[in-house]
Amino acid sequence: MTVIPGDGIGPEVVHEALLTLEALDLGLGLDVLDHVNADAYLRTGTALSDRDFERVRASAATLLGAVGDPRTDGTDYARGVLLRLRFDLDLYVNHRPARLLHDRLSPLRRKEHRPLDCVIVRENTEGLYAGIGGRLRPGTPHEVALDVEISTGHGVERVIDYAFSIARRGVCMVDKSNAVRNGGGLWQRRWREAAEARPDIETTHLYVDNAVMQLVADPTRFDVIVANNSYGDILSDLAAELAGGLGAATSANLNAATGFGLFEPVHGTAPDIAGQGVANPVGAILTAGLMVGHLGHRDAAKAVTRAVDRAIDLERTTPDLGGDLTTAEAGAAVRAEL
Amino acid sequence: MTVIPGDGIGPEVVHEALLTLEALDLGLGLDVLDHVNADAYLRTGTALSDRDFERVRASAATLLGAVGDPRTDGTDYARGVLLRLRFDLDLYVNHRPARLLHDRLSPLRRKEHRPLDCVIVRENTEGLYAGIGGRLRPGTPHEVALDVEISTGHGVERVIDYAFSIARRGVCMVDKSNAVRNGGGLWQRRWREAAEARPDIETTHLYVDNAVMQLVADPTRFDVIVANNSYGDILSDLAAELAGGLGAATSANLNAATGFGLFEPVHGTAPDIAGQGVANPVGAILTAGLMVGHLGHRDAAKAVTRAVDRAIDLERTTPDLGGDLTTAEAGAAVRAEL
Ligand SMILES: CC(C)[C@H](C(=O)O)[C@@H](O)C(=O)O
Ligand SMILES: CC(C)[C@H](C(=O)O)[C@@H](O)C(=O)O
Repeated sequence: MTVIPGDGIGPEVVHEALLTLEALDLGLGLDVLDHVNADAYLRTGTALSDRDFERVRASAATLLGAVGDPRTDGTDYARGVLLRLRFDLDLYVNHRPARLLHDRLSPLRRKEHRPLDCVIVRENTEGLYAGIGGRLRPGTPHEVALDVEISTGHGVERVIDYAFSIARRGVCMVDKSNAVRNGGGLWQRRWREAAEARPDIETTHLYVDNAVMQLVADPTRFDVIVANNSYGDILSDLAAELAGGLGAATSANLNAATGFGLFEPVHGTAPDIAGQGVANPVGAILTAGLMVGHLGHRDAAKAVTRAVDRAIDLERTTPDLGGDLTTAEAGAAVRAEL
Repeated sequence: MTVIPGDGIGPEVVHEALLTLEALDLGLGLDVLDHVNADAYLRTGTALSDRDFERVRASAATLLGAVGDPRTDGTDYARGVLLRLRFDLDLYVNHRPARLLHDRLSPLRRKEHRPLDCVIVRENTEGLYAGIGGRLRPGTPHEVALDVEISTGHGVERVIDYAFSIARRGVCMVDKSNAVRNGGGLWQRRWREAAEARPDIETTHLYVDNAVMQLVADPTRFDVIVANNSYGDILSDLAAELAGGLGAATSANLNAATGFGLFEPVHGTAPDIAGQGVANPVGAILTAGLMVGHLGHRDAAKAVTRAVDRAIDLERTTPDLGGDLTTAEAGAAVRAEL
């Protein structure tokens, strides 16, 4: 497998994730691409070279820390690494679990609403992220900017199928079909077809504005939520916050057909705290766990989750999760529980 | 002024709002268009006739209850009334205040994070709501659906200007410029120009995924949030939930140049409880207050807010706000405090 530590706190938290994998002794060969970062991009103009792209493609899975840098044009650089990998490897599912790790971490008032345990399934290769659009007369009073939200039958069907494939209790589809006509109609039709084929699963539908309200009102009622690229982006960050914050949030960008997965913690590069050894490594560690589970090491994956749960119970964490440890200490605390 | 009670709980809550206006004795002439509703749409195929549209246009302001009906194709019917009024009257600002009415109504755990008091300023005449797009091969495996998110210099500039015009402490602009290139670039440039011209106002920027997290993490830090049509839709519902739910949420669709305003509670038609006399009238009553304030009756507007606050303090409300009253009783309770 390949590893892209990336920028900001990426290398620090990936270091702890790799120590965790080492402790599991799974015999994973690691190809670390530590030259894929903003420094290289600013020097050479290339974020991810074709050669590196091929190394990623040839591997069974990739662990990515975080990419982004305030010195770059955010759009171009993100598009060059993260979005290139998602689109060019056709990683059409963004699988984002959200599980409350400890009652003390919930921002919600009512105890019975706190223990959420859901997965946001985000379409990852279409929508506004396809980069189709343009502008007319930029910088003038008559400027017009267009971005196309594209949905295809192929794309919508396969991500809805994935959502049903992982559902335990129910699937909730989120769109804005009362206002956005074409994508709305397509999602609605594919959704009804898929739902009819699975009478064993409870199916619900919400408009996205209502969905954010329902998530805050009581996130425990959700199992799997499936949505397009933009709504999935928003809903997964909201769910992460309700689960205790970005520090522990994980994601898998998957092509369920080829089996390839790109695994990344949901937190960004956090340039304000980068290099200080204070970033929370739990997101990266849990993401590594998700990855080894995907590679077939189910017991190892469970061991990682249990070790993190215990470290959090003991408040052996960085401050955002209630403890007072550094990155290295928090990583060691998880390994001590393995 | 014109009144469109609309569908579902619309007529019931508008009735209480009109009784409140009557009690204020402001001498507002009322033109009630109670034939603009889903029944008429289903019978005649027209949601809002040109004649009714002209009556609305000729008035100083319009109060709208709620439009929508499960028997209609949601998109066409909503587009025919609500979106037609927003677009054809060029109501480019959707002004959505969110203020916690009582501590008991907050879903948030930490007391100091509860008392939010902010305004979401939503661009209301562009974006994905413009209805530009189409589809190819609908219903086949090769279906493609396109919806265009359109932003213009004119449109973005005027809504940002409005946000600054009502700011007390700060303005936060929300976009997704790290992934959506053209609208993102346009919003960013107009935003920087406007922010530079107003050094007296604190300006911040958040990506929309981060913005939903920050709202849940601590909504009290926000004063005015400005965003495009889609993000404004999502953020305003989220803010309403954090303020105690849709039952009390208000909105004003404004053309700040002509002065015309279309005022509507944010809640929908709630078909499940329509006709039972149990809907919460506070959203409609506060919306009527917002409207009379806009028409220059500032003392009357303040009186409405104070009366609602007192009724809520006394738990003289419908169950969603902590009381046990019916629609009519809750409306009377507000009038008793006027
Ligand atoms: C009914 C729907 C089209 C509408 C919107 O999205 O604008 C509603 O959610 C609102 O926010 O007023
Ligand atoms: C960095 C950004 C382009 C990215 C996205 O929106 O997909 C991030 O927010 C995420 O969710 O992985």
